[in-house]
Amino acid sequence: MTAYDDLMARERETEALGQVAGRLGWDQETVMPRGGADQRAEESGAMQAVLHERRCDPARGHLLAEAEEELTPEDSESAAQLRLIRRDHDRAIRVPADLTVALARVTSRAQGQWAEARAADDFAAFAPVLREVLRLKREEAAALGGDPYDALLDGFEPGMTADRLSALFGEMRPRLVALSETALAADWPQVSGSFPHEAQMRLAREVARRFGYDFTRGRLDLAVHPFSSGSGDDVRITTRVSRADPFNCLYSTIHETGHACYEQGIDPDYRLTPLGQGVSMGVHESQSRLYENQLGRSHAFCGWLFERMRESFDELGVPDAETFYPAVNRVHRGYIRTEADEVQYNLHIMLRYDLERALIAGDLEVGDLEAAWNDRFAADFGQPVRRASEGVLQDVHWSVGLFGYFPTYALGNVYAGCLNAAMRADLPDLDAQLAVGEPAEAGEWLREKVQRHGGFYEPAQLIEEATGAPVSAEPLLDYLEEKFGALAG
Amino acid sequence: MTAYDDLMARERETEALGQVAGRLGWDQETVMPRGGADQRAEESGAMQAVLHERRCDPARGHLLAEAEEELTPEDSESAAQLRLIRRDHDRAIRVPADLTVALARVTSRAQGQWAEARAADDFAAFAPVLREVLRLKREEAAALGGDPYDALLDGFEPGMTADRLSALFGEMRPRLVALSETALAADWPQVSGSFPHEAQMRLAREVARRFGYDFTRGRLDLAVHPFSSGSGDDVRITTRVSRADPFNCLYSTIHETGHACYEQGIDPDYRLTPLGQGVSMGVHESQSRLYENQLGRSHAFCGWLFERMRESFDELGVPDAETFYPAVNRVHRGYIRTEADEVQYNLHIMLRYDLERALIAGDLEVGDLEAAWNDRFAADFGQPVRRASEGVLQDVHWSVGLFGYFPTYALGNVYAGCLNAAMRADLPDLDAQLAVGEPAEAGEWLREKVQRHGGFYEPAQLIEEATGAPVSAEPLLDYLEEKFGALAG
Repeated sequence: MTAYDDLMARERETEALGQVAGRLGWDQETVMPRGGADQRAEESGAMQAVLHERRCDPARGHLLAEAEEELTPEDSESAAQLRLIRRDHDRAIRVPADLTVALARVTSRAQGQWAEARAADDFAAFAPVLREVLRLKREEAAALGGDPYDALLDGFEPGMTADRLSALFGEMRPRLVALSETALAADWPQVSGSFPHEAQMRLAREVARRFGYDFTRGRLDLAVHPFSSGSGDDVRITTRVSRADPFNCLYSTIHETGHACYEQGIDPDYRLTPLGQGVSMGVHESQSRLYENQLGRSHAFCGWLFERMRESFDELGVPDAETFYPAVNRVHRGYIRTEADEVQYNLHIMLRYDLERALIAGDLEVGDLEAAWNDRFAADFGQPVRRASEGVLQDVHWSVGLFGYFPTYALGNVYAGCLNAAMRADLPDLDAQLAVGEPAEAGEWLREKVQRHGGFYEPAQLIEEATGAPVSAEPLLDYLEEKFGALAG
Repeated sequence: MTAYDDLMARERETEALGQVAGRLGWDQETVMPRGGADQRAEESGAMQAVLHERRCDPARGHLLAEAEEELTPEDSESAAQLRLIRRDHDRAIRVPADLTVALARVTSRAQGQWAEARAADDFAAFAPVLREVLRLKREEAAALGGDPYDALLDGFEPGMTADRLSALFGEMRPRLVALSETALAADWPQVSGSFPHEAQMRLAREVARRFGYDFTRGRLDLAVHPFSSGSGDDVRITTRVSRADPFNCLYSTIHETGHACYEQGIDPDYRLTPLGQGVSMGVHESQSRLYENQLGRSHAFCGWLFERMRESFDELGVPDAETFYPAVNRVHRGYIRTEADEVQYNLHIMLRYDLERALIAGDLEVGDLEAAWNDRFAADFGQPVRRASEGVLQDVHWSVGLFGYFPTYALGNVYAGCLNAAMRADLPDLDAQLAVGEPAEAGEWLREKVQRHGGFYEPAQLIEEATGAPVSAEPLLDYLEEKFGALAG
């Protein structure tokens, strides 16, 4: 056995434990009896402690160093595995153990306080614990080294920097604002009716299957906030059902199907290794958004979907496919990021990105955050925030310490724009396929170009290899202007 | 912090990880997608490796020794915790690590081969791997020290010995054989009809609730082989549904409810500590069997159940409660332990007990096991075994290395007999309660006398404290003779 083999046997076990911890999260959000919450917190904490200890273990560091010595230049797969292990190990050991423990403890408390504060629309009740989370995250960023915000961002999107993001967002912003104004001025039809739970779930299952989700290696359940969970041969998705709005269930399902197809599509040889998971949050979001928007909300697919929904439901409230398509893509004023349309979504992200950078840099105090949010929101979206739950308290992320995470959502849209343009060029018949409810060809293209590689390429390199061009916001903006220009025209 | 506090913090984490591993088993048997099996084997293996390492960790031994030094005589709870930790640690370190690994590997393989051999009715195909399992279990028993069978038995029923068991079984056997002959000679009515899945599950849920199962800290799902899983605030049960036989679902549910109420009824102060679980397999089985048989199959409860089932199902095939009661308790010739009636069940166990003792002692070769089984079965049950799947291959236990486990089932019946007699003496109105479908009073008695204590008392001591008399088979035999004498009379 070489040091590499030893190391990989160890990593394999760690990855397996990581899957167990992830499934515990799935269980908690889907099937756990409500009385189990306190005990579950201890169980999850114990799993996290085991995983953290393995990440930081000096024996891992020694084996890793030996394995790096052994490495021969032609062995690109081993090099990629070692690169990921090196990054993970170095990030883990830079953060002092007591800081990690303090962060776990405070964010666990903060999440509960956030939920209460949100229910009471009371940011002041949340501010003290958020201040504590922020203090610890700034400590963590300092321990990681380099620019503090970049250090946190790198945990979600390896290789990405705030400079690069700001340049992208700077390019996007004026065109999105202009498009948003045009779109908001237009009239948008809406579906209406009563959509029985079971019929929605049947349709969700069918559509997930059509988009390539493999139910023999996954399952679809209900959750308050839909998510996808797991890697390899057990990748589960969740959705939710609103009786009045069938698109909630349907597009949540397609979104999570995108995440799940990414994980299910990774080269099986990488299973339970560091390469065996999606490479970054941004690339993950590129798959979910592309499935949801560029495919699922396309004119062609909406044509099929209209007919299919007419079979499933008594009444849709729209007369034909040509009215159904703008109803699916309706642009409207709203406060909530997760309910935003394709045009305005990225503006919601930019607001959070700017505020969280200022918080991490120490340029904005937690005490001033709500006012800063409300000012910025009014400026960007043209309406005043009425309550904290539709403003600064709407997202869980900051309470659990996810600073540097939000921009990966917008980055996912940018990547999806790049991939969609290249895919459309490669697959001239795709619309004809979508028009009969068959996105399989797109799924195969994405599996070949993106999904199967797992963590092999760095995110930016992956997109460049897949599309033949460097990452740019241009394709996304062109796509949005063409689509919503026509819809609002 | 004292060494005891340090030790208990550690144990608490280990117990939490044990719960996680258990829930992974629940997931596998209830909701796991079928394609996830191979990956799941690695995940479970990784969890078991973590748990084993913690059990054997020398640091645990040092802390334990220090904590034992600190112990003051009046602190009986700490003494009980330390006693359980000491036993677990000593058992774990006596078995060499490579033997533990070999056992895990071989039993994992053997379970698959057992399932295939059973499907093919081919004991010869299973014999080689069983021989290997047996060889390793004998090695394990030798490493544990003392009488080999006792060493294995002690892992399931602390303090119990084969000598004691043989004395109990020797006392039971002639009376059970005589009763069995009488009962088999009688005519037994049978229910018949078609029992819709959903109505069966609704009834199962209602009955579980009536028996005291707390659904806020548990849930009921379907599984091929019903089981109960978990401790503390997350104790889940499973059942199965047969369209033609409503008692399969119903009594599986009541049986698992008994197991689950034991775990749910343990003093919450013991949660996630060594004391926080049922003390032995025998005591666990005493709860499940008492709920299922002495309560659930009692004349009084059957009266209520008949009326309740008449509301749920169109047709039961029996005209009245007085015919329903013997139908529920029907004694019949059969091959399968898990389908056996109350009278013959323990004879099935004694057969396995004698054969597995001979295997462990080296007095019986695996190659001769099938013939030995068939001879013994014909002698005990008066009919020849027609195929291995209804004979020596019917149970999974030996394939997974569970030697010394079978007798705890019969011991559970013996304990249930003791507890039932004491409970009936304490609760003169119990039958009146059962007759209106209310077993809550019995549940409270059992919680007070047995369940809340968790692992505080050794099994024999627990039964003696609860009943005021030493463990004896007499109450069980008296109960069976009275009940089935009347039914067959």
